[in-house]
Amino acid sequence: MSRQIIVASAQMGPIAKTEPRQSCVARMVDMLREAHGRGARLVVFPELALTSFFPRWMIEDKDELEAWYEEDLPSPATQPLFEAAAELAVGFYLGYAERVSEEGRIRHFNTSVLVGPDGKIIGKYRKVHLPGHDAPQPGRTFQHLEKRYFEPGNLGFPVFDGFGGRVGMMICNDRRWPEAYRVMGLQGVDLIALGYNTPVDHTGHTDIDSLTQFHNHLSMQAGAYQNASWVVGTAKCGREEGSMMVGQSVIIAPSGEIVAMASTLEDEVITAKADLDLGTRYRETIFDFARHREPDSYGLIVERKGAGDPI
Amino acid sequence: MSRQIIVASAQMGPIAKTEPRQSCVARMVDMLREAHGRGARLVVFPELALTSFFPRWMIEDKDELEAWYEEDLPSPATQPLFEAAAELAVGFYLGYAERVSEEGRIRHFNTSVLVGPDGKIIGKYRKVHLPGHDAPQPGRTFQHLEKRYFEPGNLGFPVFDGFGGRVGMMICNDRRWPEAYRVMGLQGVDLIALGYNTPVDHTGHTDIDSLTQFHNHLSMQAGAYQNASWVVGTAKCGREEGSMMVGQSVIIAPSGEIVAMASTLEDEVITAKADLDLGTRYRETIFDFARHREPDSYGLIVERKGAGDPI
Repeated sequence: MSRQIIVASAQMGPIAKTEPRQSCVARMVDMLREAHGRGARLVVFPELALTSFFPRWMIEDKDELEAWYEEDLPSPATQPLFEAAAELAVGFYLGYAERVSEEGRIRHFNTSVLVGPDGKIIGKYRKVHLPGHDAPQPGRTFQHLEKRYFEPGNLGFPVFDGFGGRVGMMICNDRRWPEAYRVMGLQGVDLIALGYNTPVDHTGHTDIDSLTQFHNHLSMQAGAYQNASWVVGTAKCGREEGSMMVGQSVIIAPSGEIVAMASTLEDEVITAKADLDLGTRYRETIFDFARHREPDSYGLIVERKGAGDPI
Repeated sequence: MSRQIIVASAQMGPIAKTEPRQSCVARMVDMLREAHGRGARLVVFPELALTSFFPRWMIEDKDELEAWYEEDLPSPATQPLFEAAAELAVGFYLGYAERVSEEGRIRHFNTSVLVGPDGKIIGKYRKVHLPGHDAPQPGRTFQHLEKRYFEPGNLGFPVFDGFGGRVGMMICNDRRWPEAYRVMGLQGVDLIALGYNTPVDHTGHTDIDSLTQFHNHLSMQAGAYQNASWVVGTAKCGREEGSMMVGQSVIIAPSGEIVAMASTLEDEVITAKADLDLGTRYRETIFDFARHREPDSYGLIVERKGAGDPI
């Protein structure tokens, strides 16, 4: 059986603070239809794709804050996207802010779902690596309060069978952490779907921030190569409520090569034919983990959180 | 106190099978002097820098095989390099094949030493990630028998204080494994010295091998960036006994940017001024491990060696 599928990255331009979810969903349905017309069976949308990137604001009012989250998917607002998926037999990845009652309390996660070509949810992922701060930082035009508004994901890095292969998910800052790719690589991942919202001033240091686009691609390319996996990285981008965010959404082969890239800062669909078997030769040679990895030397990766003294 | 030092990568062209160690050492002393003249305080030589890359041959004769290893450094043949280092007050990294009596038996490792500006050994590293095979593979013009001729390193990934900072070592194939960088990053490494011998046909698959130079840099750049460390990667390169090996030795900043690169396939010195504090801003923002890493989600990295089923 062939393991070639056409995949799409459906980049989104800015979402205004006042833009309703219905409007965002309509934009996504349009791109889902375009992707389907170009042969795609899987479409990757951005992180927090239903709203403006609200962690840039300090929101004191509880009701105002809670209004940014979703409780269940599909919701009335997102139902048209799920219906279009089923109608066209095209699956998708969608990022959103999740509110859930778990362990007897209300919890908030930065979440994504993988939806199959039947419009049903195959699996869920909750962002593990939350960037930014849990309190406003003085002197910043825009805050980055993900650590305030979300808990770190509690589902690990699961992978799911679908689309003829094994699919994993990441969200935004996860892509800078090689551990995230590796945990999925150790589960035989074939394709990693990944949405992001990355302000060009995300660190606040101009020397680092000037390299934001380079770093965006560097981490995804290395993660793809080192785990012999496709990576589809999709931006929400452009100037959103005054905050500039990077675009350059990409489809990356298991070679680490960028094989498709967005060229605008607007809603834009890019596609590539992904041979899920392309990673096989890597897995049989230099990245044959069973022959070449040496976990006895990796202990510090789980024993330490922060950097410390030489052991 | 300033933490800026000029570092050098001293790339070597081919070493013939019959070239004596004294000749290789003389070539290295020449480069050490050139590097010193250009202000360098630390010079990184290649992996297995004292001989031709012998793992390309199946060697049946025990005495012939043992002749490729060193017992103690400095040896009579390598003494001039240690003396030049002390004379010039320039330290170095040197890769060599090590034979040692340990645990009541003779053992063989692919080893490197870090030598201080006083000509004394600061620390030793033994290559953890051995590529290739433990038996000859049919149909290959050149073998890659590192798994036959060496044991995996048993010293972990140590880092050593020196040169105004904290220095770690890798050898060749280690650079493709993000775990190696991370274990050193978790010990606050400032600079990673790394030598390699990488045949352009190292996997035997033309599609992968055609990307050897891209992959060489991709892994080192990502490892530097994701651990906010300098990386100095030094090739032995060119056509050695008929086997073509990649050059493009590099000095990489903690930004992941290549700031110096060799342009020949011969003996060549490149230098850069390395500010060991350049990684600090990365460590205080996006790569503040203590704030952002989530080791509870990384268990599989040490629990599994090879890839397996979804958990």
